[in-house]
Amino acid sequence: MSKAEIIKPYKKEHETSYALGAYATFELLDTKPELLRNVYLHSACAEPHKLLEKCSEHNNIPAVWSDEVFRRVSQKENTYVLGVFDKYTNVLRPDKAHVVLAHPADMGNLGTILRTLAGLNLLDLAVIAPAADVFHPKTVRASMGSLFRLRFAVFESFGAYREAYPAHAAYPFMLDGKTLPDVLGWEHNPLFALIFGNEAIGLGSEYASFGEAIRIPQSTLVDSLNLSVAVGIGAHAFAGKYGLIE
Amino acid sequence: MSKAEIIKPYKKEHETSYALGAYATFELLDTKPELLRNVYLHSACAEPHKLLEKCSEHNNIPAVWSDEVFRRVSQKENTYVLGVFDKYTNVLRPDKAHVVLAHPADMGNLGTILRTLAGLNLLDLAVIAPAADVFHPKTVRASMGSLFRLRFAVFESFGAYREAYPAHAAYPFMLDGKTLPDVLGWEHNPLFALIFGNEAIGLGSEYASFGEAIRIPQSTLVDSLNLSVAVGIGAHAFAGKYGLIE
Repeated sequence: MSKAEIIKPYKKEHETSYALGAYATFELLDTKPELLRNVYLHSACAEPHKLLEKCSEHNNIPAVWSDEVFRRVSQKENTYVLGVFDKYTNVLRPDKAHVVLAHPADMGNLGTILRTLAGLNLLDLAVIAPAADVFHPKTVRASMGSLFRLRFAVFESFGAYREAYPAHAAYPFMLDGKTLPDVLGWEHNPLFALIFGNEAIGLGSEYASFGEAIRIPQSTLVDSLNLSVAVGIGAHAFAGKYGLIE
Repeated sequence: MSKAEIIKPYKKEHETSYALGAYATFELLDTKPELLRNVYLHSACAEPHKLLEKCSEHNNIPAVWSDEVFRRVSQKENTYVLGVFDKYTNVLRPDKAHVVLAHPADMGNLGTILRTLAGLNLLDLAVIAPAADVFHPKTVRASMGSLFRLRFAVFESFGAYREAYPAHAAYPFMLDGKTLPDVLGWEHNPLFALIFGNEAIGLGSEYASFGEAIRIPQSTLVDSLNLSVAVGIGAHAFAGKYGLIE
């Protein structure tokens, strides 16, 4: 039985996941090649040479041509490259700024946020469960493979995160906090943790007791901004102030 | 033949489109009730009373119970309310700031941007064709109905937009412009037009000749930020500087 025959649609309890598309698979090859079990190519893949070259550079990662694999695991058309990788665990660095997502529900949002945080050099992400699956192929795809550039860890509660990292100055983003430009004007502990809530319900009022609540200025025409947009605006402001990006 | 029988899956050439979900349909009722032809309710709709009341307040907009309609036009589960509305055209206000999207391709991004702009009081949007369909039910849904709060107009080229609105100071967002914080430090014409390119290719180099190109600071770990995140960061900075939000 060839490897192509035993591949199955992704499930959260599996030990492996899939990077769908050439971009995410290249990110995996560039950042964590040791996790890559093998690469599948579709017969419609027009430019396999660079990918095959990289696979052979990295301890001969097996590359298999198989259209059947794509019919089984990919719901999007135009996916011609797929990398099977081992899931892994990370520990967040205690001496770096963190972003904390409490119960994000949408895999597209979560992936977009991973990409944004890689783009802002905010590379340590805590996810408070229950939450969308960081390793789901949809999340990995939406992240454009940026997942592999970040450290992330899942905590069973915000309290469990806080216990592990008590030194960080917590900034929960809430609709009734101090406004972002005001808070940015203050002197801060550069060891900050920016906390964002769930798409539908935001953060519970108890989060205001963990630190200085921040409100992103907005009009009254919408209830809230999209979560990935709110993280982009809030995290970009902090990354800029602390010189993480230029 | 009842109205429920003649409803068809959406096509761009149709004169009507659909607001899917209670939230978007309420936005339509609150902002442009005259465009609403009728409302459909699924038998699983648990709280129809407020909606039915609003429909009868607004010149008795017909409300029809039909599960068949949802099977025909909605690809998402859990959609129990649908509003059929007439498409319309807008003219952008010459004395207000504009946002210009050149060739956005993804309906989810476009809808998220519509929601963001409503949240930033940037209410005049130019879309340069070819582009994703602003009236597509997927765009309307991703906008959470914010579409109905904005004026928008589609132009066949950036030149056609520029000819219609020559007074606006143009700020194309490009990867090699001046950095956003620097540009924000300058004195500006408050009559600005923020220009963002396509998801895959950004803006062509010719856009640098239309105004002061702006670069959003970012790391080298990603090629670019997601379009809706980039619009969020850039537009929020301008909206804040010019007091459009607080």
